[in-house]
Amino acid sequence: MLEDKNQERTSLAELGEFGLINHLTKHFKIHHSSTVKGIGDDCAVLKNTEEEIVVTTDLLIEGVHFDLSYMPLKHLGYKAVMVNLSDVYAMNAEAQQITVSIAVSNRFPLEAIEELYAGIQLACNTYKIDLIGGDTTSSTKGMLLSVTAIGSAKKEDIVYRNGAKPTDLIVVSGDLGGAYLGLQVLEREKQVFNVNPQNQPDLDAYTYIIERQLKPEARKDIPALLKELGVKPTSMIDISDGLSSELFHICTQSKVGCKVYEEKFPLDPQVISTCEEFNLDSTMVALSGGEDYELLFTVSINDFDKIKGNPNLTVIGHVTEEAAGLHLVTRANQELELKAQGWNSFSDQE
Amino acid sequence: MLEDKNQERTSLAELGEFGLINHLTKHFKIHHSSTVKGIGDDCAVLKNTEEEIVVTTDLLIEGVHFDLSYMPLKHLGYKAVMVNLSDVYAMNAEAQQITVSIAVSNRFPLEAIEELYAGIQLACNTYKIDLIGGDTTSSTKGMLLSVTAIGSAKKEDIVYRNGAKPTDLIVVSGDLGGAYLGLQVLEREKQVFNVNPQNQPDLDAYTYIIERQLKPEARKDIPALLKELGVKPTSMIDISDGLSSELFHICTQSKVGCKVYEEKFPLDPQVISTCEEFNLDSTMVALSGGEDYELLFTVSINDFDKIKGNPNLTVIGHVTEEAAGLHLVTRANQELELKAQGWNSFSDQE
Repeated sequence: MLEDKNQERTSLAELGEFGLINHLTKHFKIHHSSTVKGIGDDCAVLKNTEEEIVVTTDLLIEGVHFDLSYMPLKHLGYKAVMVNLSDVYAMNAEAQQITVSIAVSNRFPLEAIEELYAGIQLACNTYKIDLIGGDTTSSTKGMLLSVTAIGSAKKEDIVYRNGAKPTDLIVVSGDLGGAYLGLQVLEREKQVFNVNPQNQPDLDAYTYIIERQLKPEARKDIPALLKELGVKPTSMIDISDGLSSELFHICTQSKVGCKVYEEKFPLDPQVISTCEEFNLDSTMVALSGGEDYELLFTVSINDFDKIKGNPNLTVIGHVTEEAAGLHLVTRANQELELKAQGWNSFSDQE
Repeated sequence: MLEDKNQERTSLAELGEFGLINHLTKHFKIHHSSTVKGIGDDCAVLKNTEEEIVVTTDLLIEGVHFDLSYMPLKHLGYKAVMVNLSDVYAMNAEAQQITVSIAVSNRFPLEAIEELYAGIQLACNTYKIDLIGGDTTSSTKGMLLSVTAIGSAKKEDIVYRNGAKPTDLIVVSGDLGGAYLGLQVLEREKQVFNVNPQNQPDLDAYTYIIERQLKPEARKDIPALLKELGVKPTSMIDISDGLSSELFHICTQSKVGCKVYEEKFPLDPQVISTCEEFNLDSTMVALSGGEDYELLFTVSINDFDKIKGNPNLTVIGHVTEEAAGLHLVTRANQELELKAQGWNSFSDQE
């Protein structure tokens, strides 16, 4: 599971920047007729559209956002795309194009970058995304990726963070906390490996949560499902930093409060059993874990009948007046004030 | 001129990611009604347009693309925007929005990031650009910036690299080689400083070329000028890697050859005198220097009367049949084959 140091090595300098870009991107397909010009000019060119354009960008840095000792490069490429598509879907929009910039130190041979791009290509083919540009350069240390995603939606379909109203229902897609626990398992196995490299880890009990960490899927299906159900959320955000932090964003921007119920949190059985094993509180993990890339949104209470019982959606609480604040209602019916405990990359600096 | 180690220091961790973004961007103005939503949601939102959208992105990495021992942070912020706008203008398009992602190690206090953003803001105000998003995170080493620029143009106005035809004239804006020579002067002063920190450099003789390196301007005026003159280039590219490398891009994509004339190259007197001082050939510097961010384009010979004598434009040669190859005609009337000697960040790796 650790980085293979004995792979074939082709030096990046042999190819040069333009040779490298061509080598890595020549097999990518164009899926959208809106992509007039992809890679190969000063800019990519997109056709005009009657829809509004949405744009999002994320940086992923080795040693801060990922650890290549347990993150295979193909998975990293896939995840870097997902992280950005998730933001597009959180606008209730359709993702169409990405740019990918990478910087790599000379520790990485061509074969490693090919693996990374294989993951990017898989994501592009699965989600019907056109790779339209980027930049490729060397770094003085490690690897970093900067991805920008572009999508579109009709003006009347776009959902912002600021439209939640008191009595709206708070809904999440999928389940919570898995990605964070997957990371805990991988970190533990890394420690074990460092002590005893001969040890063969048995990860069968953790397949779901490890996949949530290493190969998350952006919820492209949720905007489509909501359209099918005839529901337009009043606000929406993707869960990248943890439920608690995202609730704060929605409540602050919508000028409302909220009440969420511990007993309603959707948790996978592997999340519950792994929390027990690691002596972690599963509610805290769901609130602060992050990286689930599920969607958190609010809908009018009048839409309850349209969403209830849907296996992809869970109502976890409701919106309140701003003055009421943000609260978690525990199983013991206690009300605890929520704190924004999102992930802060600056607090973990060396 | 070297980095000041004794500045006021506010730790970035104190603010957190969202506090930092808000702190840095709250004074930025929105210039375009096409920017529906800037910073503060999962995505920025742009109004639909009847024009085509152009997108470009560039990575700038400390130790690879810039050296903070002589590049003030405010200049770096300004230049990072220029590098991207230049690509938009090279499509004959108008630039409107940028996203800026930065990663910084804990070596940088808040005050340093404020300086960087002061430069970004100056560029945005001067060029009427809306900052619509980005990502802010920590790095394990040094600073990096990833900028994406978005613009638009009417479909019929967009100029690609692939439209040059034999007999077309080859034109450059401004002058060449200054940015590269400015870098040579700054590198020399850094060596002097390392030996004798008390030495006060006298840089009066190099003000123009140092400004070309530290504070380049993207040629927003050239697409406007061409429109005014009634000229649509047949191909266009910006000069970021050096004239020779850009000629190769145009010729390869247009399937043509070219002939450029040494005696026609536009050189500032400071470029000529500094070349003499450094014992460098000014033609080589113009061909391979890079970072001038001028525009290189081709126009139909029928447009010659419209552009001749314009102080912003210099005809340096003409397009030939592909089989004729790419040649430089020297002052001694020798024909030398051009080589693509663009800057390759991978060949300089540690």
